[in-house]
Amino acid sequence: MHAMVIQHLPGKLMDGEILRRAIERIDELGRISDMPGELRRTFLSKANLAAGACVMKWMGGLGMEVAHDAGGTVRGILPGNGHTSRAIIIGSHLDTVIDAGKYDGALGIICALAALELLRKEGCKLDYPVHLLGFSDEEGVRFQSAYLGSAGVAGLLGPDLLAVRDEAGKTLAEVLLTEGWKAGAEVFSYDEFSSSGYLELHIEQGRVLEEAGEAIAIVSGIRGQARLRVTVEGLADHAGTTPMNLRRDALTGAAECVLMAEGLARESSALVATAGTFKVRPGASNVIPQLAEFTLDVRHMEDGFLNDSLERMRRNFTAICERRGLRLGWNPVQINHAVNCDERMIAELLDCAESVTGKRRLLGSGAGHDGVMMSKVMPVGMIFVRCRAGLSHHPDEHVEADDIGKGIEVMAEFLKRRNA
Amino acid sequence: MHAMVIQHLPGKLMDGEILRRAIERIDELGRISDMPGELRRTFLSKANLAAGACVMKWMGGLGMEVAHDAGGTVRGILPGNGHTSRAIIIGSHLDTVIDAGKYDGALGIICALAALELLRKEGCKLDYPVHLLGFSDEEGVRFQSAYLGSAGVAGLLGPDLLAVRDEAGKTLAEVLLTEGWKAGAEVFSYDEFSSSGYLELHIEQGRVLEEAGEAIAIVSGIRGQARLRVTVEGLADHAGTTPMNLRRDALTGAAECVLMAEGLARESSALVATAGTFKVRPGASNVIPQLAEFTLDVRHMEDGFLNDSLERMRRNFTAICERRGLRLGWNPVQINHAVNCDERMIAELLDCAESVTGKRRLLGSGAGHDGVMMSKVMPVGMIFVRCRAGLSHHPDEHVEADDIGKGIEVMAEFLKRRNA
Repeated sequence: MHAMVIQHLPGKLMDGEILRRAIERIDELGRISDMPGELRRTFLSKANLAAGACVMKWMGGLGMEVAHDAGGTVRGILPGNGHTSRAIIIGSHLDTVIDAGKYDGALGIICALAALELLRKEGCKLDYPVHLLGFSDEEGVRFQSAYLGSAGVAGLLGPDLLAVRDEAGKTLAEVLLTEGWKAGAEVFSYDEFSSSGYLELHIEQGRVLEEAGEAIAIVSGIRGQARLRVTVEGLADHAGTTPMNLRRDALTGAAECVLMAEGLARESSALVATAGTFKVRPGASNVIPQLAEFTLDVRHMEDGFLNDSLERMRRNFTAICERRGLRLGWNPVQINHAVNCDERMIAELLDCAESVTGKRRLLGSGAGHDGVMMSKVMPVGMIFVRCRAGLSHHPDEHVEADDIGKGIEVMAEFLKRRNA
Repeated sequence: MHAMVIQHLPGKLMDGEILRRAIERIDELGRISDMPGELRRTFLSKANLAAGACVMKWMGGLGMEVAHDAGGTVRGILPGNGHTSRAIIIGSHLDTVIDAGKYDGALGIICALAALELLRKEGCKLDYPVHLLGFSDEEGVRFQSAYLGSAGVAGLLGPDLLAVRDEAGKTLAEVLLTEGWKAGAEVFSYDEFSSSGYLELHIEQGRVLEEAGEAIAIVSGIRGQARLRVTVEGLADHAGTTPMNLRRDALTGAAECVLMAEGLARESSALVATAGTFKVRPGASNVIPQLAEFTLDVRHMEDGFLNDSLERMRRNFTAICERRGLRLGWNPVQINHAVNCDERMIAELLDCAESVTGKRRLLGSGAGHDGVMMSKVMPVGMIFVRCRAGLSHHPDEHVEADDIGKGIEVMAEFLKRRNA
């Protein structure tokens, strides 16, 4: 069935070396770790630099001009035929979470290498340069601040970010001057004039593709995300002697709020709301809870809709608490704005996906990606590849070889069509 | 207003010494503690024995024949006129919780002394003996097993109870042989032939009387109580990438169960249901909870109704979990059967309460009392006195002097009417 839908790249990939090599490379990167027994690569760590060096070696093998910047990000440039100097930037991240899977980040870099190999094998020479970037930090493990690699490349490392400190108390500014590659380090810098778009392939990290039985989705954008801490305060009372109508039970009030948020999110296919933590005080089996506290994580593709949804939740929570004689605490912790993918890139990628898989699936990304930073300086497009059970940030993270092959083909098809 | 409703005891109590002395005695007992800065008297502790000795001194002052038993319980016997040998037993407990209030337990003993003083002042001699008991343990702090004092007196200290251990690892059997009063200790023992009823006055430990603006309630019985641990198991998933319709969220499922239990309890005025603890795992703001666990405390006056309610909850919880793709764990931890107060004593006490306060309020007790044990060997009746904000087991526990006065009068009236 797979061979039938490959029209532009008839079977070359699946039969050949390219996919096998890509999978070997994913395994090889997956063994480069700072911690024996688990996969862990953090910003400027020894393993992270080693992974970057390994990727540079592969880039060099493709005839790319390779370099690394002071922030640990690596780059390979494949010159174009000279018709245009505006490059297509492809990227993903080299770093991982703690006890990570081997596909999150690495897959995007390896698939880009494979797509370029496929084009070379086909004898297809691109009109424009391709810059392939391996970002040194996306997960934000070391500084508890994500996207340091792409933020650096996009010129977004401002004074606030440079002042963040790691667990050892070192600032990012200090670390950039004293760690990583000093010799031969460049400063990579992109703006809206230097490139015509940023492309990233990434595992979905969700179960939509698996449930649909499909391999590839094109990303419509990265959801805006609000994180809040909600408290509900009532009155501690004796569980045996206080009739139901005299209670001011913080837990049941909070439970009603949580279900309200869930119901509201269910009304809209693109809204998600999650209470991930939930605690009560005093927390004794025979005492009516005086205080309940939970976190609320709400995400949507449009900032306006997200804000409206939050406002509806706050209003409804307030009404629930007033009716029950409780006091609501509504504490926003963090707001990340939504990022839209580029309309033209989405349309082109959907066409490419359809030519490879027969399907045009558009999907919003619930997780953040380097495109968040890159979108500040260029159009962004993303390809999602199905991952088993939607699992990520876990050693059991897995992507089927067939799906990797389809991701490579979609990427190659996109690059080829941009030639015209 | 108070003076108007006192028909049988016209004003003698409120004007006189008796109430003032009762309040002084409550304060005096409230200062006898094992712990500086807070009130604490536990089974056979130094302060608990000292409080017993103090009560025996007051009993002696009333002409009672005093004694203590090996279990630390004290007794005063006021002989009757000889028409009957079957005694009325009055009691409450000398022990307290940690950082306790001074009314819980002590009030019942002090009010009984005051009621007997009032009858003597009136020249009323009772036909029958009165035994006043100060139980050494009701709260169960030391052995995590309640009612040790009344269980001993009622002959209910079986092998299981005698084998329970305190934190130091000592068994109850061992402690009874080695601690407390050995010299002159008797064994108090009651059965259905030795007494015509057990009477106890206690603070309500709830807010029903306060909300109603009334001072006194007569107890219909002590609610049966079921304690359960409920678990709801779903699937941990990414809060950003998992659409609402693909979630198996343990927290929202458990929240629905908690609200279901609350709703069911609200349907019946005498049923209470409380989730006092609530925990989720993994408990991260961006991860859909995989496991939620809460305790459920359900109480009702009738065992049959309690069991039916539990069965309805279990059925509804199961349906909620099935609908959501969750797994329910329903784990009963403890079942205490309901105890009914004696119909005749209830009727007499309601009459007495009406004669003193103008009101006939019948109230189920949500908390346990020594009557649970005494009911095994004799009819039981209880008087509840309003406490401020329903607060108990707390140093701010408070009862108004007026209400104490009314409690004493109801008790005295009951004893007097039994003379006829």
